[in-house]
Amino acid sequence: MNPLRALLSPASVVIIGASADPNKVNGRPIRNLRRDGFAARVYLVNPKYSDILGYPCFPDLDSLPEVPELGVVGVAAQGAREVVAALGAKGVKTAIVWSSGFGEMGPAGKQLEEDLVATARHWGMRILGPNSLGLTNAFERMPLTFSQYADAPLQAGPVAFVSQSGAFGTAVATAARSRGIGLGYFVSTGNQPDVTVAAVIEAVLDDERIRVVVAYMEGLPDGCAFVAAARRALALGKPLVVVKVGRHPAGSRAAVSHTGSLAGDDAIFDSVIRQHGVLRADNESHALDLVSALVSCPIPVLSQSGAGASTGGVGLITVSGGAGVMMADLAEELGLVVPTLLADTQARLCGVLRGFAATGNPVDVTGQSIEDVTIFQRSLDIVLDDPQVAVCVIWVQLLHAKADQLVDLLVQCKQRALKPFILCWLNSPPAAVQRLRQAGVCVVDSTLGGIQCAAGLLELGRARLRHLAEPSPAQAVRALANTGGATEIVGSMQAADMLGQCGLVLAPTRMATHADGAATAAAALGFPVALKIESRDLPHKTEAGGVLLNLSDEAAVRDAFARVMASARLYKGDARIDGVLVQAMQPQACELVLGIQRDASFGTVVMLGLGGIFIEALRDVVFATPPIGREAARHMIGRLRGQVVLDGIRGRSPVDREALIDAICALSQFALQHPQVCELDLNPVFASAQGVVAVDWLMVRDPHA
Amino acid sequence: MNPLRALLSPASVVIIGASADPNKVNGRPIRNLRRDGFAARVYLVNPKYSDILGYPCFPDLDSLPEVPELGVVGVAAQGAREVVAALGAKGVKTAIVWSSGFGEMGPAGKQLEEDLVATARHWGMRILGPNSLGLTNAFERMPLTFSQYADAPLQAGPVAFVSQSGAFGTAVATAARSRGIGLGYFVSTGNQPDVTVAAVIEAVLDDERIRVVVAYMEGLPDGCAFVAAARRALALGKPLVVVKVGRHPAGSRAAVSHTGSLAGDDAIFDSVIRQHGVLRADNESHALDLVSALVSCPIPVLSQSGAGASTGGVGLITVSGGAGVMMADLAEELGLVVPTLLADTQARLCGVLRGFAATGNPVDVTGQSIEDVTIFQRSLDIVLDDPQVAVCVIWVQLLHAKADQLVDLLVQCKQRALKPFILCWLNSPPAAVQRLRQAGVCVVDSTLGGIQCAAGLLELGRARLRHLAEPSPAQAVRALANTGGATEIVGSMQAADMLGQCGLVLAPTRMATHADGAATAAAALGFPVALKIESRDLPHKTEAGGVLLNLSDEAAVRDAFARVMASARLYKGDARIDGVLVQAMQPQACELVLGIQRDASFGTVVMLGLGGIFIEALRDVVFATPPIGREAARHMIGRLRGQVVLDGIRGRSPVDREALIDAICALSQFALQHPQVCELDLNPVFASAQGVVAVDWLMVRDPHA
Repeated sequence: MNPLRALLSPASVVIIGASADPNKVNGRPIRNLRRDGFAARVYLVNPKYSDILGYPCFPDLDSLPEVPELGVVGVAAQGAREVVAALGAKGVKTAIVWSSGFGEMGPAGKQLEEDLVATARHWGMRILGPNSLGLTNAFERMPLTFSQYADAPLQAGPVAFVSQSGAFGTAVATAARSRGIGLGYFVSTGNQPDVTVAAVIEAVLDDERIRVVVAYMEGLPDGCAFVAAARRALALGKPLVVVKVGRHPAGSRAAVSHTGSLAGDDAIFDSVIRQHGVLRADNESHALDLVSALVSCPIPVLSQSGAGASTGGVGLITVSGGAGVMMADLAEELGLVVPTLLADTQARLCGVLRGFAATGNPVDVTGQSIEDVTIFQRSLDIVLDDPQVAVCVIWVQLLHAKADQLVDLLVQCKQRALKPFILCWLNSPPAAVQRLRQAGVCVVDSTLGGIQCAAGLLELGRARLRHLAEPSPAQAVRALANTGGATEIVGSMQAADMLGQCGLVLAPTRMATHADGAATAAAALGFPVALKIESRDLPHKTEAGGVLLNLSDEAAVRDAFARVMASARLYKGDARIDGVLVQAMQPQACELVLGIQRDASFGTVVMLGLGGIFIEALRDVVFATPPIGREAARHMIGRLRGQVVLDGIRGRSPVDREALIDAICALSQFALQHPQVCELDLNPVFASAQGVVAVDWLMVRDPHA
Repeated sequence: MNPLRALLSPASVVIIGASADPNKVNGRPIRNLRRDGFAARVYLVNPKYSDILGYPCFPDLDSLPEVPELGVVGVAAQGAREVVAALGAKGVKTAIVWSSGFGEMGPAGKQLEEDLVATARHWGMRILGPNSLGLTNAFERMPLTFSQYADAPLQAGPVAFVSQSGAFGTAVATAARSRGIGLGYFVSTGNQPDVTVAAVIEAVLDDERIRVVVAYMEGLPDGCAFVAAARRALALGKPLVVVKVGRHPAGSRAAVSHTGSLAGDDAIFDSVIRQHGVLRADNESHALDLVSALVSCPIPVLSQSGAGASTGGVGLITVSGGAGVMMADLAEELGLVVPTLLADTQARLCGVLRGFAATGNPVDVTGQSIEDVTIFQRSLDIVLDDPQVAVCVIWVQLLHAKADQLVDLLVQCKQRALKPFILCWLNSPPAAVQRLRQAGVCVVDSTLGGIQCAAGLLELGRARLRHLAEPSPAQAVRALANTGGATEIVGSMQAADMLGQCGLVLAPTRMATHADGAATAAAALGFPVALKIESRDLPHKTEAGGVLLNLSDEAAVRDAFARVMASARLYKGDARIDGVLVQAMQPQACELVLGIQRDASFGTVVMLGLGGIFIEALRDVVFATPPIGREAARHMIGRLRGQVVLDGIRGRSPVDREALIDAICALSQFALQHPQVCELDLNPVFASAQGVVAVDWLMVRDPHA
């Protein structure tokens, strides 16, 4: 049983400092519980009353007839620890702390928060909050929150919403309600020093009534728990949508001052969650559109090969050519394919549509459809039949006079269709939209929303495909925090050995400690060669003048040996110099960067980036947590914005992508086998049609890990 | 007087083939005109009736008591030309053709359309359409359209909306109405072989009741007319918002099949319209949000210098820390600055807000505001006072209980405020929003919308600033179409002369026809030098093996001379070789591309791009129409996505931006002075702290221009 069961679905609740005033934070939830008919046992504690709205009220905890499963603490920050201690002493195992004035208030508040958590831990108690608005469980008719969201009765549904922010959470939950999206759970985690967003996600996934989970977060203290939850969601086929703010410097600054949580490196977050099949929404509208689609639509079933069953194209049907072009534009921008429909599909459409219509995709049904709305149904059936189409978006507007008929027809389509479709209806009659939603048809009210829904469904379809090819990571992901102790640079030759054993290809390299040795090594490797100073005190060899390239004969090598040694000594007189690396020059190729980093939230992550100016000017890098299978590696490559350079520009041959996938997988293996390695940079890595070879590497070890 | 006056505001109208059935295309407008009380004279032609809804109906044109100013043609495509001819013969000077079945239908329809236009031209008649839904002029209560938009009475307002697409136009116009945005004009241009979107924009700008113009387009046949209209809008301070679809291949394909208009090169379109202060909206929601802001808000007054009056920052006030972070994220993504508020501003905010609040920006007023909504007003006044803040976005949600008070307070703010602010209200009570809009407060319902409004206002403020610095182009922009005749390559030395005279800096170059001459030239220029083959038949010198770099002494130059000549002859035996260019080698620097192109829509455009991999892999190029002043040039540079490379990466010094501006302005001068030059590539151009110098150039002339 999930450890948060008592929090989410308590058999008995006690509210400390209960108020009879429904305008008060400690009174409003009592009114809400009574209104919705919460069936579990509710106890109140306040010496001033004996009863509020029919719930018994006691002078103190000791007077309660039983030990409740859940305690609610809404006293001022300074008093919260004491109340938690009293609950703990009584044997209460979970509590909601909706007091604020803790970590979000700076160092003093942070101390109060730590004391609070320490007290809870002492008693083996889990706490939601502080600075939480509480939670609702609509299945149990439990509006245990002072959020304005619960000012109206709860409406159960297949969506769980977990929000770090209370106010923003309230806004999204309320907007969800007005779209007819029922929230089974709405949980506000607040400062989350104990129960985190990830922990609540894990818990609600257990509930079979929940089919979609949405989360809002500002920081992610437990990235590995989150990844585990995401993998589980993917395996269960329950989509997980995340809004995480703090994508940019100004945003991060605000996040820090807001809840005291560090936004972390958003590029890592973004890559890793997508690796594990999480859909990221940019804002509340995007999130709600996605949820609308996910509660109504099946996840598209895609096939890996280019041929055969649905290859992930989007079919567009519109009553306005202009809207069709706009949808196609948006689709391209989101990386979707808008395939030209098969000749057979187009022929069938011609049987339905009149002369002015376009059948290629977008399909423009023209004004003819105003007279005869069956055209939408007939076109939709035909377009969904095209094997290239995995999801369809239909764009209509107004049609108030024929709205009921259109609803009937689309509901029939929905009952028949195996593939998902989205109805984008501008200026729609509200009653028609309500009927469609009740019948499980996804309706959105903007062109952008329609295409974003299609994009989300397809991203999920591809994630499912990766998951089927590479089920669950064989090895559990563990976060390794930096110990904070001194780290050390691993010698280049030793590093090369370790990397080579994992299957990474490095430029052939030998060590030399004198000019004769360098000359011998060069001859053995074959000219031209490069010479690079080797010293743990000079990790940046080029800056130290310790690199000379394109040495084409023995004399040049001898001369270079003397020069790099001299430069290095000049750069840092006391540098411990182990010698000089002699390396076979590699032919010019596409420059990449590969590496390993240790992220505060996710632990070890593998990095891939386009090198040179791309990484410096555009930060075009992606990340993934190991273990990384071939499909996950392919997905990483596909997420590089500048990936077109891999296809060969300036007359170059395309890069061997399979070799690059080999390298990423090898690096993932390396990361798992060498937990002490906290930092690794392969930069540059040369990628070409002939393969992928690292030319420089820097490995850092945390011996205390 | 604008030539389209009779179209937009006719004193008398005749509808050919009028129908008494309000469900028919030729009947609905009659019902609409009667309903709205159109005051001008309406004549109908149909032998079956003598009167429809009180408007006199005649058997034929000749029976009319006067020559009407405007004729309306709704007959089938095949008959349209004949009706237009009859109207023309009668002396009618403008017509709306809402028949479809023309250019949008392929070659046969295209021929019909050309015949139609030729007939109209013969009679000196202007036509709107074919394939137009007609137009509305709300000031004259004239719903002369069969669009569903006019199913409800017109509502006059300061916005003119011109749409190439009828159906999409209807959707946007209807959505505008439901937001309380009054459309003074709604004009559907259809296939626009005569009256174009640009022409209508030009015409409605003349109307002093119009303050904002919105246009939807798929193609732009008359880019220069559009630019002229845009400049005029900018000078008048009337914002122009454009939605243009066909941004991407799939979108363009659909645009072509939809209205037969070529989408053209969207990168050029996008650059050029922004140069001239047009706001581009990505979709209908974006457009409507922008219009909401533009009808309510003053254009921010910005100052060029970093100091003093408003430098273009965005102030964010929110009741939810999370929403604040999200807004800050979105702002950063749109290139806006979210400045930390001044200490003085923060001190004043501390006087208003309680302890939990954040005052840095975003300003988080916290739940305190639910009890006391005056906090919004007081915070807004203070934040708008901060000299760094040019526009403010306030984010609230729900607050139904205090909605009236909040409305009163914000209306007071609006009356006082000199700077614009946007209210982003999620889950708002509709009546409150209506009151706010009536009082001129901009209200949007999504976080994205709020920030997009701020971005639009600021973009407009910056465009106004450029306009004030560089008023109207001294020289009218003229489109020069390619004549289609043979073009010729201009010799490199002559080209260098022409470019040098306009102030462009080129790498010092001499021509040599034999090895001795090359050696002498090299000695004069100073070693090292480059040798490049000079032949009008070998425009791509490198491919022909005709370039050798870094020649460091006379022997190398002599040897190189022989080699490039031999390579060139090998590559193309019959190439006319003029000699070899000897050029002083330039130090490594940031690689740029500059050039001139001739665009089908805008005529000559100047191009700037980041060179090398940027232009090839990322297409990071921007364009502008000459004349280009310094501020316009600065704006071009600022729009390069990878412009961070100009700031100096990999240890380089920053590029001298003023020198780059010099080069762009010189190129603009060159383009104006040399209309025969139809193509010019300066590639690469080396930019560094020392200046900007072109290393290679290729100039193509159209001698028939």
